[in-house]
Amino acid sequence: MTLTSAPFHVLTDGSSTSAQGFSAAGITAGIKASGKPDLGIWASDVPCVAAGTFTQNTFPAAPVVLSRDRLRSRRAQAVAFNAGNANACNGAQGLADATEMAALAAQNLGIAPELVLVASTGIIGVQMPMDVIRAGIPRVHVRPDGGHEAAGAIMTTDTRAKECAVALQIGGREVRIGAMTKGVGMIHPNMATMLAFIGTDAGLDPSYAQTALKRAVDRSFNMITVDGDTSTNDSCFLLANGLSGAPELSEASPDATRFQAALEAVCIDLARKMASDGEGATKLLQVEITGAASDADARAAARAVVGSSLFKAALHGSDPNWGRIFAAVGYSGAQVDPNRAALWIGSVQIAQHGIATNASKDSARAEMLGDEVNVRVDLGLGAATATAWGCDLTEGYVVENSAYST
Amino acid sequence: MTLTSAPFHVLTDGSSTSAQGFSAAGITAGIKASGKPDLGIWASDVPCVAAGTFTQNTFPAAPVVLSRDRLRSRRAQAVAFNAGNANACNGAQGLADATEMAALAAQNLGIAPELVLVASTGIIGVQMPMDVIRAGIPRVHVRPDGGHEAAGAIMTTDTRAKECAVALQIGGREVRIGAMTKGVGMIHPNMATMLAFIGTDAGLDPSYAQTALKRAVDRSFNMITVDGDTSTNDSCFLLANGLSGAPELSEASPDATRFQAALEAVCIDLARKMASDGEGATKLLQVEITGAASDADARAAARAVVGSSLFKAALHGSDPNWGRIFAAVGYSGAQVDPNRAALWIGSVQIAQHGIATNASKDSARAEMLGDEVNVRVDLGLGAATATAWGCDLTEGYVVENSAYST
Repeated sequence: MTLTSAPFHVLTDGSSTSAQGFSAAGITAGIKASGKPDLGIWASDVPCVAAGTFTQNTFPAAPVVLSRDRLRSRRAQAVAFNAGNANACNGAQGLADATEMAALAAQNLGIAPELVLVASTGIIGVQMPMDVIRAGIPRVHVRPDGGHEAAGAIMTTDTRAKECAVALQIGGREVRIGAMTKGVGMIHPNMATMLAFIGTDAGLDPSYAQTALKRAVDRSFNMITVDGDTSTNDSCFLLANGLSGAPELSEASPDATRFQAALEAVCIDLARKMASDGEGATKLLQVEITGAASDADARAAARAVVGSSLFKAALHGSDPNWGRIFAAVGYSGAQVDPNRAALWIGSVQIAQHGIATNASKDSARAEMLGDEVNVRVDLGLGAATATAWGCDLTEGYVVENSAYST
Repeated sequence: MTLTSAPFHVLTDGSSTSAQGFSAAGITAGIKASGKPDLGIWASDVPCVAAGTFTQNTFPAAPVVLSRDRLRSRRAQAVAFNAGNANACNGAQGLADATEMAALAAQNLGIAPELVLVASTGIIGVQMPMDVIRAGIPRVHVRPDGGHEAAGAIMTTDTRAKECAVALQIGGREVRIGAMTKGVGMIHPNMATMLAFIGTDAGLDPSYAQTALKRAVDRSFNMITVDGDTSTNDSCFLLANGLSGAPELSEASPDATRFQAALEAVCIDLARKMASDGEGATKLLQVEITGAASDADARAAARAVVGSSLFKAALHGSDPNWGRIFAAVGYSGAQVDPNRAALWIGSVQIAQHGIATNASKDSARAEMLGDEVNVRVDLGLGAATATAWGCDLTEGYVVENSAYST
């Protein structure tokens, strides 16, 4: 975790159950052929103010349809989740199955079914194995120390669990935010991302909860790409149970800025973890755009560079082929004056006024050898900035994705 | 070539010099380290009505800036071209070099410099080796039978030359269209494509020439993708010298429809050749969208599917992972009703009403084993259609692009 000098501190061994009153568990139900964990529940002891962001894909999965509908109440208490099957492109049966999955989890927890959201990830277009789900959910026993176990049960092609938690002071009380997420293919979030669960014991005004989440997601999960493919299942949930006893935050609260900073830090940390664990990835790519004419331009340019197959492949070979970076900025739609653009790979300035500097290729290559590579493009037009994250494109990505469903 | 039942016929051994009065040549000047052909000239015996479409990349290469400016006169007679260096991101020196390259070619041909366009392809951000160009251009001797030689000299990572020519009758005269193009990385044309030169001996009204070219490009080169990266150098030129003696065509001419069909057929044939020779490609992917609510929707959906890294990887493994196709349509921006969408891989209908049919995975896989795979998605919403072409994503693409510049 790379958070520094922020008005909060990072918790050692943080997870989605780090905030007071959250518990979780994950089991191997048998949805995945691999025999790895694939089913779980994440819950709060009490009903929460809830917010969510979801995929903009027009083939939304059944759990997205169900959870989006339920979140109109801005209240939720738990999420039932599974890996191994996305329950997408499954028609009316898919929606019935997601609804039953929520009901089973509600029964397990002894709460109202309407307070349970659902999140699924895995293969698209295969009906849910409901016998497995029906047998599995009663065996899930949520515990306050079950966060890591739950994070393991939402992994698909992830090579490691992705968790983060922070604490900050609000009104003399310690408030915590704990979260988990999973990646790592079909990652090009639009308004949301692949599954992310964020639990806080802060008290949040419902309208503020949605605003704060949207803002954080826009600067984190919406700024990463692995392969340019926006999933049918992207879902990001924020549950706030107020159990810290801290005063409720609204948009106008003086402490809202600090809570927002902490929430964004958690989301950015998880987004970076997702990008660096992209399918087949060996390197994390961070692209910063400065000097853009507008925020939208900065975001578009940053996303174009982290999404460029050509630069991603060059990154894999530690090849400072910087023309591919300018080319990506050039097709991003951002306003550009080629004579003003400058470019750095790590600390080496490789282009100025739109053309090559005298920097040696070897010095630029040296900056690309590590497992994290930083690129900065200054457009020289304004004050807007944005940062995006991605990974290299490797033979491993191709191998992993050329025979996944069968 | 797969053209059938069209109001024109395909010429055996067609090239960019198949139309009357066109000649070309290519040589090994020494721009490429490989020692392969890398410099050439394509010319008409007489000045032509000329049209062009160019990359929308905001870092346009110097030859794009020069040629776009010169085409405002709607007249041109020749194109000087090279492979091995894109002359992009080279500032004022780049533009001066492109201008000198045109002047050298004009001197060689004994024509006015303003009638010479320039096209370059290769590495970005490296100044043109002008000593090599100055020594090379006088050695280029254009000949009516030099089409194939010229097509060889614009190749970069292309594994084969891409040429096509057709003939049709207009006003009792035989009119020919001959063309060449090159790919095959940084291919995601927007309003134009990588280098394409089309010469016809038809007589074309200047305004009609531009309209006809734009229309053909929109249905061919603008509907292919290899890697989603829009180049800095895309240029497509149409030169019409009128030497067939056929009556001049304008938008209102009865024969314009037939000329348009022939021009589109040439462009589509070359676009397919580019897609199937995409870097690392082993298969051509053709995606047809039917039943879309609008032409724009159909085009966006078709382009999204051929651009999906996940489906391209699945295609490589002949894996009928059709959820990735619907997911791509779903993030394309096209209007979709998931309950109406149907999907075919080859002749196998694999989804209906948005969900899986009973078709066996093996039958779908069998349709994916050949070197050309056809996918059709019917959106069930309207009458608009579009077709796009792409290729599979392979380990070869990654290997080829992880160490290109050095």
